[in-house]
Amino acid sequence: MYPAKFENLIAAFRRLPGVGMKTAERYAFEALNWDEETRKEVERSLQQISEIHTCRICGNLCDEDECEYCKDPNRTDHLICIVQSPKDLQALESAGVFNGKYHVLNGTINMAKGVLPSDLNIDTLIQRINENIDEVILATEPTVDGETTALYLTKLLQGKVKVTRLANGIPMGGHLDYSDARTLQRAFQGRTNAQSE
Amino acid sequence: MYPAKFENLIAAFRRLPGVGMKTAERYAFEALNWDEETRKEVERSLQQISEIHTCRICGNLCDEDECEYCKDPNRTDHLICIVQSPKDLQALESAGVFNGKYHVLNGTINMAKGVLPSDLNIDTLIQRINENIDEVILATEPTVDGETTALYLTKLLQGKVKVTRLANGIPMGGHLDYSDARTLQRAFQGRTNAQSE
Repeated sequence: MYPAKFENLIAAFRRLPGVGMKTAERYAFEALNWDEETRKEVERSLQQISEIHTCRICGNLCDEDECEYCKDPNRTDHLICIVQSPKDLQALESAGVFNGKYHVLNGTINMAKGVLPSDLNIDTLIQRINENIDEVILATEPTVDGETTALYLTKLLQGKVKVTRLANGIPMGGHLDYSDARTLQRAFQGRTNAQSE
Repeated sequence: MYPAKFENLIAAFRRLPGVGMKTAERYAFEALNWDEETRKEVERSLQQISEIHTCRICGNLCDEDECEYCKDPNRTDHLICIVQSPKDLQALESAGVFNGKYHVLNGTINMAKGVLPSDLNIDTLIQRINENIDEVILATEPTVDGETTALYLTKLLQGKVKVTRLANGIPMGGHLDYSDARTLQRAFQGRTNAQSE
């Protein structure tokens, strides 16, 4: 309906996740109003996608061969925290709750979608496990896929290294009456001794 | 937090309207998974933005000098329908309710945002008004800005040509108890003789 080049632009935006016709149209009209400089900048960002690498050691996103966390001498080498994605890694980093090294799987096992363990960044993980590693912390999400992956990795690593899993339970500030049954079940299973101070 | 090139990519997506940090991140991860071909295609679409023109006659988007509607000999030359944007033009075209020519203002008067009549595509409209034009139909939206623009154009064109405005009222399939007071007021003002067949 629109001129071909404008339709192409809409089609380009429709490739983004969750973007339908109306939103793509809105984006295209916005893009049409970008000044020369902005347009060049956006183009350059897209061109640079092919230059974004994954860390040789942990699989995290990086500009170079090794990521900033793997290179950081101030982080302990004895702990490895396994996450599904760079996004989850950033969530943990933002919270400032972990000072060891990471390992990014870049996905989860999902038989229905045909994602097998061999599709994940697991080979390099095995290579990292040595007598220097005290503990591997599984931080995959508590979803069906994340749990499946955690189970697989537990079986794979058991006997080689201590394997732990992040606790599940009622989130801080959360309400019991808004929590689902499985969360409450986990909260009971994982109950700890009450602290008096 | 992410590598610089990935942050650039997120920043590029954040330039889209209504896109915050989380959505931009999601788009960037999707873009990272695009294959070479898709990436090239998206890049090309963006590069072509500068080749999208506005029609010399009506201001609609077009690939060439004149748009398909202005060039179409099957459309009547005696009616001009004035719309705010190419999007609104497409809405009317999709409904198939008008077979005259269009004029696209590419905006509305908005004093608060500093959009003056001189910023709109009005000069070329004046040039189009001649004895050949029977009627100009104002199809700007019934919002504050659209109404202001319609009022301005009515004053500007009155005496030169017949000027009409699209009817306001209860939308088809709409409910009275869900209609706002101004819509009901307009529906009363614009009431027509009941048709017996």
